[in-house]
Amino acid sequence: MKPISYEVANAEVKAVFDDIKTTRKLDDVNNFWKYLANEPRMLAHVWNSVKDIMGPGSLDPLTKELIYVAISITNNCDYCMASHGFAARMKGASEEQLNELYAVVGLANMTNRLANAYRVPVDEAFRTES
Amino acid sequence: MKPISYEVANAEVKAVFDDIKTTRKLDDVNNFWKYLANEPRMLAHVWNSVKDIMGPGSLDPLTKELIYVAISITNNCDYCMASHGFAARMKGASEEQLNELYAVVGLANMTNRLANAYRVPVDEAFRTES
Amino acid sequence: MKPISYEVANAEVKAVFDDIKTTRKLDDVNNFWKYLANEPRMLAHVWNSVKDIMGPGSLDPLTKELIYVAISITNNCDYCMASHGFAARMKGASEEQLNELYAVVGLANMTNRLANAYRVPVDEAFRTES
Amino acid sequence: MKPISYEVANAEVKAVFDDIKTTRKLDDVNNFWKYLANEPRMLAHVWNSVKDIMGPGSLDPLTKELIYVAISITNNCDYCMASHGFAARMKGASEEQLNELYAVVGLANMTNRLANAYRVPVDEAFRTES
Amino acid sequence: MKPISYEVANAEVKAVFDDIKTTRKLDDVNNFWKYLANEPRMLAHVWNSVKDIMGPGSLDPLTKELIYVAISITNNCDYCMASHGFAARMKGASEEQLNELYAVVGLANMTNRLANAYRVPVDEAFRTES
Amino acid sequence: MKPISYEVANAEVKAVFDDIKTTRKLDDVNNFWKYLANEPRMLAHVWNSVKDIMGPGSLDPLTKELIYVAISITNNCDYCMASHGFAARMKGASEEQLNELYAVVGLANMTNRLANAYRVPVDEAFRTES
Repeated sequence: MKPISYEVANAEVKAVFDDIKTTRKLDDVNNFWKYLANEPRMLAHVWNSVKDIMGPGSLDPLTKELIYVAISITNNCDYCMASHGFAARMKGASEEQLNELYAVVGLANMTNRLANAYRVPVDEAFRTES
Repeated sequence: MKPISYEVANAEVKAVFDDIKTTRKLDDVNNFWKYLANEPRMLAHVWNSVKDIMGPGSLDPLTKELIYVAISITNNCDYCMASHGFAARMKGASEEQLNELYAVVGLANMTNRLANAYRVPVDEAFRTES
Repeated sequence: MKPISYEVANAEVKAVFDDIKTTRKLDDVNNFWKYLANEPRMLAHVWNSVKDIMGPGSLDPLTKELIYVAISITNNCDYCMASHGFAARMKGASEEQLNELYAVVGLANMTNRLANAYRVPVDEAFRTES
Repeated sequence: MKPISYEVANAEVKAVFDDIKTTRKLDDVNNFWKYLANEPRMLAHVWNSVKDIMGPGSLDPLTKELIYVAISITNNCDYCMASHGFAARMKGASEEQLNELYAVVGLANMTNRLANAYRVPVDEAFRTES
Repeated sequence: MKPISYEVANAEVKAVFDDIKTTRKLDDVNNFWKYLANEPRMLAHVWNSVKDIMGPGSLDPLTKELIYVAISITNNCDYCMASHGFAARMKGASEEQLNELYAVVGLANMTNRLANAYRVPVDEAFRTES
Repeated sequence: MKPISYEVANAEVKAVFDDIKTTRKLDDVNNFWKYLANEPRMLAHVWNSVKDIMGPGSLDPLTKELIYVAISITNNCDYCMASHGFAARMKGASEEQLNELYAVVGLANMTNRLANAYRVPVDEAFRTES
């Protein structure tokens, strides 16, 4: 698979690239979008979803970026760890915060398996509240 | 595997249970800890790690709880979704925030696989910053 | 999907069922094999592989069963945890050993993610040895 | 993230590094610990847990190391496969044993999905025993 | 979390529900959409993506449904196995085809881990072609 | 682990290699088989299963290859993405089809987690049919 650069992109892809650049105040889009441009329909869907959900909302943008990093670590996605780790730093994450995030990711992956191993039944208190 | 209740627990387990109850201001510990008490060494290790990392730190406790929920969803751990979803609500998460969290979890799991599928190379900008 | 019982199985499936019963000294095969019998080719392939690998070899049968349990916990497969946990007990695993196994599974899943998070480069010493 | 070497580590980290070196009879700690030292609290927690659980216990150290390798393969963690594969060899694993381990890992990941696909109900016999 | 039924849905959600019902010729939407309606933005994004990609395209709809089932088995998502297994049957999948699909899923999950375990380098022939 | 080439392989391994080369009309086997030859029993089992299931059957060979690619992406197996992506192209997959496949993989991984997050109960209609 080859990346699609702005110069050779069709009008549909160019429109999405322009929106990404304007929204994120960037001179060029990241590799992720250039590769995804091989499937213009998904390029538009993914960008529209990301733009809508990762922007201001009920959760602050940094919190959402940290959640993104945590999932990317759990799924072992190199590109995603790099790109969202970068984005988290741009949105203000300190090295201390990232280190604490990694600790939480480690703990959650440990206790997820311990809960599985013991087949722990859900406490009544959790059921009635949720 | 059977849960170990406070009454039948040995002194080592009781000490951990007491610390959990005091720290979290609870009358009894959750099922997770009662099952984990079958391995008293891990009970102590896991509790000490969780107490240390999930309390006040560089990231606020609610953010860490939300990260925990996100990983539990990604790993499909029923007990962990229920217990940490409950904890997130106790720490102030609104239904709007949880719904937005779920949206982020869905997006991250989608883009993680799209980045894998296209084997997207890491952008130079991300490398130099991180 | 419905399980295929011995009575209604075709000759190809019956032959595999008979081999399972003889090899394992059982009166009937477990549900796994009855469901897998819906695809007789895979029933034969899976049974032949399992019989060959899980029997006596370089690793003792109990060690292999414990490894099976560890992977089933990591993958969150309920049936597999139940059936291989049972098999491990039949092959002599004590409750203390199973509890220690669960602790190892928890630790491995934690450190796997911490190694991912920090993108730790492989030590030179490991490379030259393996 | 940068590794923390012994020379520049603070007293808390140095104490853990010294304990690792003494316990494992090594001149220096592996990269994993140097990176984890960016979060001194988790460095201490993880080392204490690993030291306690991976040492002598109900299961012999080699068995536990093999289980660690199996999970690291399942989770596709390169560093962990390399470091625990190395440790397994140091603890006496032969190439035949490692090859048999890989076969078990392959089988378990196959049958985990076949059990999921057929949604196989847990046999009564397994329930009453466990 | 509670499902949002058509009667109590707001206009934005109702419009998506109407489009789902019309497109799929159904009297009511499935539970998935009723729960997702708790986050109307994602309801719209997910439906628009699914409608666009899962309909006619370069791959026939049945092939895409089978791929969906295969991933849902690999991720152990009960709801998704049930809903997409149902959809695959509606689109013409026979029991023989589903059984063969399950066999492929089992094999792929096995060989994925064997390739990881042996850290097999990518053949030159594959690189030059892709 | 080192690959076993045809020249140094034992008779058992050579027989499998010959069958792979004849069946697939190749001059040499891929790296996967050369590494797997370190465990001759699994080499034979895996090849026999793959030959039997991935050949002509209820599903056409291209569909099965696409399913293989989809699972390899979800599991993040580099070698498997490369080898089965190559095989899919050899069996006639166009770039448009592969791009659409990637879109389906992304969607399935997203909705799998959304279904988990909301713990969506299985619709009655799906249960009665399956």
